[in-house]
Amino acid sequence: MNTNNYCIIMAGGFGSRFWPVSQSDNPKQFLDVLGTGRSMLQTTFDRFAQFCPRENIIIVTGEKYHQRVREQIDGLQPYQVLLEPTRRNTAPCIAYAAAIIYERNPNANIIVSPSDHAIFSARGFEQDMQQALQLTAESNHIVTIGVRPTNPNSKYGYIQFSEQPARHDIQRLHQVVTFTEKPPVEIARQFIATGEFFWNAGIFIWNVNTLRQAYQTHLPNVARNFFSLTANATKAEIEAVYSESETISVDFGIMEKADNVFVLEASFGWSDVETWDLLYNTCRHDENQNCIISGNVFGYDLRNSVVHVPGNKTLVLQGLDGYIIAGNDKTLMICRRDQEEKIVKFVSDVELDEMMKQLNKKASL
Amino acid sequence: MNTNNYCIIMAGGFGSRFWPVSQSDNPKQFLDVLGTGRSMLQTTFDRFAQFCPRENIIIVTGEKYHQRVREQIDGLQPYQVLLEPTRRNTAPCIAYAAAIIYERNPNANIIVSPSDHAIFSARGFEQDMQQALQLTAESNHIVTIGVRPTNPNSKYGYIQFSEQPARHDIQRLHQVVTFTEKPPVEIARQFIATGEFFWNAGIFIWNVNTLRQAYQTHLPNVARNFFSLTANATKAEIEAVYSESETISVDFGIMEKADNVFVLEASFGWSDVETWDLLYNTCRHDENQNCIISGNVFGYDLRNSVVHVPGNKTLVLQGLDGYIIAGNDKTLMICRRDQEEKIVKFVSDVELDEMMKQLNKKASL
Repeated sequence: MNTNNYCIIMAGGFGSRFWPVSQSDNPKQFLDVLGTGRSMLQTTFDRFAQFCPRENIIIVTGEKYHQRVREQIDGLQPYQVLLEPTRRNTAPCIAYAAAIIYERNPNANIIVSPSDHAIFSARGFEQDMQQALQLTAESNHIVTIGVRPTNPNSKYGYIQFSEQPARHDIQRLHQVVTFTEKPPVEIARQFIATGEFFWNAGIFIWNVNTLRQAYQTHLPNVARNFFSLTANATKAEIEAVYSESETISVDFGIMEKADNVFVLEASFGWSDVETWDLLYNTCRHDENQNCIISGNVFGYDLRNSVVHVPGNKTLVLQGLDGYIIAGNDKTLMICRRDQEEKIVKFVSDVELDEMMKQLNKKASL
Repeated sequence: MNTNNYCIIMAGGFGSRFWPVSQSDNPKQFLDVLGTGRSMLQTTFDRFAQFCPRENIIIVTGEKYHQRVREQIDGLQPYQVLLEPTRRNTAPCIAYAAAIIYERNPNANIIVSPSDHAIFSARGFEQDMQQALQLTAESNHIVTIGVRPTNPNSKYGYIQFSEQPARHDIQRLHQVVTFTEKPPVEIARQFIATGEFFWNAGIFIWNVNTLRQAYQTHLPNVARNFFSLTANATKAEIEAVYSESETISVDFGIMEKADNVFVLEASFGWSDVETWDLLYNTCRHDENQNCIISGNVFGYDLRNSVVHVPGNKTLVLQGLDGYIIAGNDKTLMICRRDQEEKIVKFVSDVELDEMMKQLNKKASL
C-alpha cells in the first residue's frame, strides 16, 4: 500500500434529516442508515482502508462525538482523531487535518471525504481514487469527483466542466468551469440538459503541497493559523486558532477560486443519502416495494414504505402505502413519504415541547 | 352505608383484544384503557365503594394477577382477594365468592360485576344498584341489568323481556323471557326491531340466599363443592374443588334456566369496551375526531384515529386517517380501524415468531 496515501474523513455533522433515527447526539454518520450492519462512518473508513494505510486515515469530528468515533473504529492513534472545538465549516477543518498530515509526511496525497455518503461500487471507487492519487502525486491538480446527474436534484452542488477531456489518456478528467451550490430545480434541469454538469460528490484529492499552496493563495488567514498546529498542540492552542477562524466552506473558499481544479467523472454510483426519499431509493426493496432497514416488522398490506426503528422493536404495520416509519427508543414518527419536508417542523415542535417541559419542571422545583 | 351490600368483582380475564396494549400478563382490567388516570379495575372498585362498604367488596382473579390487584387497590383484607387456581368460567367463580360472603353475612345482597366495563353515569349506576339491592333484599328476584341497544352488535348477549313491567312501581323492571349469546348481526337487527331486547351488561344482583338456592337447583355439583369453601380454606382444598369443577357460565348455568330472573333497564350508559372500535366510540374526541388516550402525540393531518401508547413515548403522526396506533414498550401496531378483526392474526403471527426465536436460541445453546 502506498504510504503517501492519506485520507481526511469529516465526521462532525449533526444532520437532523433522519430524525428521529438520527439526532444531534447520534447523527447520521454514526448510524447504520442503510441497514448493512455497519455505520456510515465505519463503511467509509473500511472503504478507504483498502488503499490507504489505516494509520494514515484522520477523522475530524466534534468533542461531543469523540467517544462515538473511538467506539466505532478500533485502534486509532491519538493523532488520528482531531476534535474541533467549534464548527467552522469545511475549509478550517481540512486545513487542521492537513497540517497534522504534513507534519507526518510532506509528500502526502490526500483524499478529503464526507463520512456519511453511500458509494455503490467499492471497486469503481478504489479505481477512481487510485487514479486521482496518482494524478496529484504527479501534478498540482486539485481533483474533485463528479457524478453524472440522473435528475435535477436541487439539494446537490453542481460542477460545470469543459467539454474536452483535460488529458488524452484520461477521458473522464475535465477542467472545472464553475461550481454552483444547490440551484433551483429549474436551473438544475437546464444544467443537466447541457450535458456539461456533474453533481459534486464532495470528495477532493490533492497533494499536501498543492493544498497548502491553495490555502496560502486563497485563504491566507486560515493557512497562517491552522498550518501552525501540530499533533502536540494543546487544547488551548487549538481553541485559540478556531476562535479566530472565519467560517467558510472549502468549495467557496478554494475550489471556486483556484484555476487548477479538475473533475473526474465517477465510475461508481453515489448518493449523499440526505433525505428519506434518497434512502428509500438507495435501499433494497421487498416484493411490496418496502424498504425495511431495521426493526422486527410484520407488514400486512404494507407498500412503498421505508421502516427504520431500533432492531429490538416489533412493529405490526397494516394498511400503509407510501410512509416513512422511523424512530429511536423514545420517539416514533409516521409520515407520508411525499410530505418529508414537514419533518423540519416536527423536529422543532417536539424540541420546543421538550424545552417547555424542562422549564416547567425547573419552575416547579 | 348498608352493611348488607356486597360486591363480587370478576377480574380474572386475559383478553387479547387490546393487543398490543393489553397482553396476557397485563390484561385490560389492569389498564387505564380509557385514559382516565385509573385502571378499569380501580374505576370499578371506586364506583362500588360509593354504596358498598369497602370491606364488602371481593375481587376474584387468577394467581398470576394477585400482585397486580394488590398494587392497584390499597388496604384489601386477605379474604377480599380470591385466587382461582384455574379458570372455570363465571358460575364457579361467583359460587366461590358467594361462599366467602355467606360465611361473613348470611343476609348479604350481592352485586356481581365484570371489572373492565365502562359506565357513563356513576349517579345513574348507583341509583339502579340501590334499587336492585333493595329488591333482592325484599324478594327472591335475580336482577340483571339491561341496556337499551343502539346498534345490532353481534358481540353482545341479548335479554328478551316481557312487555309489561314486572311491578307497577318500577316501570323499568321486566320479567326475563330469554337470554341469547352473541347472535348474528341479522338476528340482532330483528331483535332490536321488536323493541323487546336489551343488551346484557353482565351485572347480576341477588340475595345470597337466592343465589345459593339457584345454584342448588340448577348447578348442584358446583353448589356442593364451592359452598363448602371458607375463608380459611387451604390452597390444596381450593385446588381440589376447582379441579373437579365443570366449566360453565352463570348465564348458561343459571340465568337461562331460573324463572325468577328480572331485568332492570339501565339508567346509565354502558360499553364493555371490548374492541378498539368501541373504545374509539367511548372516548373523548379532539377537533379532528381523534381519540388520544395516552402517549405524547404530535398530530399533523391526523384524523379519526385512536392512539394508545405508553405515556413516555413521543409519537409524531402525519397523514393518517382512521387508524389504530397502539403499543407497549416493545411492540407497536398501526392498523386501519376498519380492519381491526385482523389483530387476532397479528397476535398469532408475532407470538409464533417469538416462539420460533426462543426455540432457535435454545437450539443454538
